[in-house]
Amino acid sequence: MSEYVPVAIIGAGPAGLTLSHLLHQHGVESVVFESRSREDVETTVRAGILEQGTLDLMRRTGVGERMEREADIDEGIEISVQGERTRIDLTGLTGHTVAVYPQHEYLIDLVARRLADGGTVLFDTTVDAVSGTGGADVTDTDVTGSGPAVVDYTDAAGRPGRVRADFVVAADGSRSPYRGLVAGAGTDGAGADGAGRHRHEYPYAWFGVLVNAPKTQKELIYATHPEGFALISTRSDTVQRYYLQCDPSDTVEDWSDDRIWEALHTRADSPDLRIAEGEIFDKAVLRFRSAVTEPMQRGRLFLAGDAAHTVPPTGAKGMNLAIADVAVLAPALVRALRGRPGLLADYSSIVLPRIWRAQHFSWWMSSMLHQAPEATTFESRRRLAELSSVLSSEAGRRYLAEQYVGRDLPEFEV
Amino acid sequence: MSEYVPVAIIGAGPAGLTLSHLLHQHGVESVVFESRSREDVETTVRAGILEQGTLDLMRRTGVGERMEREADIDEGIEISVQGERTRIDLTGLTGHTVAVYPQHEYLIDLVARRLADGGTVLFDTTVDAVSGTGGADVTDTDVTGSGPAVVDYTDAAGRPGRVRADFVVAADGSRSPYRGLVAGAGTDGAGADGAGRHRHEYPYAWFGVLVNAPKTQKELIYATHPEGFALISTRSDTVQRYYLQCDPSDTVEDWSDDRIWEALHTRADSPDLRIAEGEIFDKAVLRFRSAVTEPMQRGRLFLAGDAAHTVPPTGAKGMNLAIADVAVLAPALVRALRGRPGLLADYSSIVLPRIWRAQHFSWWMSSMLHQAPEATTFESRRRLAELSSVLSSEAGRRYLAEQYVGRDLPEFEV
Ligand SMILES: Cc1cc2nc3c(=O)[nH]c(=O)nc-3n(C[C@H](O)[C@H](O)[C@H](O)COP(=O)(O)OP(=O)(O)OC[C@H]3O[C@@H](n4cnc5c(N)ncnc54)[C@H](O)[C@@H]3O)c2cc1C
Ligand SMILES: Cc1cc2nc3c(=O)[nH]c(=O)nc-3n(C[C@H](O)[C@H](O)[C@H](O)COP(=O)(O)OP(=O)(O)OC[C@H]3O[C@@H](n4cnc5c(N)ncnc54)[C@H](O)[C@@H]3O)c2cc1C
Repeated sequence: MSEYVPVAIIGAGPAGLTLSHLLHQHGVESVVFESRSREDVETTVRAGILEQGTLDLMRRTGVGERMEREADIDEGIEISVQGERTRIDLTGLTGHTVAVYPQHEYLIDLVARRLADGGTVLFDTTVDAVSGTGGADVTDTDVTGSGPAVVDYTDAAGRPGRVRADFVVAADGSRSPYRGLVAGAGTDGAGADGAGRHRHEYPYAWFGVLVNAPKTQKELIYATHPEGFALISTRSDTVQRYYLQCDPSDTVEDWSDDRIWEALHTRADSPDLRIAEGEIFDKAVLRFRSAVTEPMQRGRLFLAGDAAHTVPPTGAKGMNLAIADVAVLAPALVRALRGRPGLLADYSSIVLPRIWRAQHFSWWMSSMLHQAPEATTFESRRRLAELSSVLSSEAGRRYLAEQYVGRDLPEFEV
Repeated sequence: MSEYVPVAIIGAGPAGLTLSHLLHQHGVESVVFESRSREDVETTVRAGILEQGTLDLMRRTGVGERMEREADIDEGIEISVQGERTRIDLTGLTGHTVAVYPQHEYLIDLVARRLADGGTVLFDTTVDAVSGTGGADVTDTDVTGSGPAVVDYTDAAGRPGRVRADFVVAADGSRSPYRGLVAGAGTDGAGADGAGRHRHEYPYAWFGVLVNAPKTQKELIYATHPEGFALISTRSDTVQRYYLQCDPSDTVEDWSDDRIWEALHTRADSPDLRIAEGEIFDKAVLRFRSAVTEPMQRGRLFLAGDAAHTVPPTGAKGMNLAIADVAVLAPALVRALRGRPGLLADYSSIVLPRIWRAQHFSWWMSSMLHQAPEATTFESRRRLAELSSVLSSEAGRRYLAEQYVGRDLPEFEV
């Protein structure tokens, strides 16, 4: 591998791979480092709901073909309040839909496309250190085409390697050690200037199961009940994904199959709809947390996706936000490499408002749909009244639907 | 005074007086007991924003004439976020308006009308005890026309008196001792059956001032700022009512005129609008709390208005809810007295959903517009993102506006 690359990208998740693909479309080379194997990346089941803006970007940049063929298009979702279901007509209310297309399928498409385009994606290769990214604002950076930033890594054979880059993008997920280079010494709490990591913890988590069962119905059901939340979602005609609100300290051992089915039926059945049962073949606890690092850049280092921000899964925004970040970062990097660093200097301030709105939406959906274990009776009743206010009003449903389908992604000329 | 009356009403506030007026319109007699003097009732400045439904009821029942002439009609409000103002076009978004007509003016109109109609409103008369209201459901109550409920009072001359009534309505405001007869032994916390008092405290209060000054502008400004909330409202062309978020433990002494003006300008000015100054002639601290008693009835005793529920002032719902309660209670009592107790048995369950939606709205407006002193940086930023989501979306503005103008009041034939 060459010893210099304009952009070094850590992580072959949605953020890193999409960024590499977008840069290539503008003739900019990059290297993607990924600690995991290609197989691992291509088989780990995670996000599944893509916003319209994400779909449009995929189509526009030529990686939307299989998605177009295979994705389920959801024109609505249902919200069930103690068994009483209200449909949120996403299409009728917003003119948009969301697509259900698993994250790993998206990654399969992107990896294939990157390799077909001659791109460099180094699997089984872990970045060990990043240096020389500097502390100065990027507008002060002299972009010479043989950047002073240095990325040290260990390749698939266990050999150390080093590459120099003009820009380094940490797209290495929620445990990124590199965001420390941006947020300053501490990665926790915000300083007086607002810089730092803003966090929120939730008093619940999700217990997720994969089940061999037919679809209960086509559209997702977000169910709330005094005993807790449940989400009925679908992976295919034969595999379903159910989630149950649980205690953050719960483990897989706490949830027998019997307990799972009882909870699902209690929380999500309605008089005319019984959640489909089947063999449970996967159980896992998903943590709930919100976090944002501000700013998302320093010198030659940029954060994208989960490396900068985490959302609880309720709003299904994680993958979409990762892609929204790089939809700005890609043209910004291209411009900077061509001597116009203005957009890159503004990267953080351009993407953060969308991130915070998505944080709000995820927090709101979570708070409105979960029964917090310590909630007062006032709080529980207020929450049900809020659901009634939102669901009984066309404006309320549309306000929710707009945020669910997401806003268009910004487009920048390069 | 006669020793029997079909309906005894404790309190000549909006709830009690409106109820007495509505009952009279259906030919049912009542007595209103009021501890304060007529002058006191007619001069105490409190609520000022009337929903469309409240206005319609006043018009429909012949007490809307002066209001129609004198009330300011507000077709919009403004929300200012750190000096950036967004107008919520109430009329454009909902087809409705709100009216600014002070509560004491409304009470002046109602007292005059009640007396002109030959009604009995006993000022300077305090109810000391209520008994015989029973514990059974009202549907089991034998309404004989010489009710077994007993109201003991002390009249203006300090003489004790007693009246028997078929029904007693406690419309005696937020400190009602009589709600204890409904909620059971304890008035705090809810039992397993959900009965009891549901409460919520807020970490802030309002510092309210009355000022001799011209209007800053016609429409209300709800202003939020990192230093706290401010509300710019108006009483007349020459008297303005401003509120500032303050600490619940603050006293009038903590707020010098200088401090008030500095806080108002910091929080509510915008580049093209400076809050009008003038002589401050009244200062007071308003507590913030939410509470609901459930159910709102037991046997022959019924709660209405603040006696059953308190809202923080942010949503301007208190007086409107009081009137909404009696819009149901009046026809229910009339029917019960005519041998059809069904609606009266359902009184609580009919009015509580509206009350809880108003509780939600008041909580939401409060939470979204105030800077809680202990808020994390995550929480503060999320709150600003929520404001941005609501204000930048037509659906969001309409969802807010619909709740601000309120829903129509239910109408029941008697
Ligand atoms: C179970 C689950 C369900 C989810 N459901 C949804 C959903 O429905 N909708 C939604 O929008 N979001 C969902 N999310 C969130 C979504 O999956 C993430 O937001 C998304 O993966 C973020 O993409 P990313 O590229 O920023 O990070 P990641 O996908 O985490 O990618 C980071 C990559 O960097 C690699 N890496 C880390 N450190 C190094 C290193 N030092 N060197 C080299 N490589 C490194 C990692 O191996 C990883 O592959 C879900 C997440 C989980 C866990
Ligand atoms: C400063 C202030 C500003 C407000 N602003 C708004 C606003 O903008 N919009 C809004 O909608 N709401 C507002 N409110 C709330 C609103 O004023 C109340 O919700 C409303 O007055 C409730 O009406 P009510 O008839 O239930 O009770 P009240 O108006 O409190 O009337 C109860 C009456 O009962 C009498 N009483 C009590 N005990 C006895 C007894 N034992 N015997 C005889 N009489 C008794 C009291 O003297 C009182 O007159 C405000 C309140 C305050 C204090």
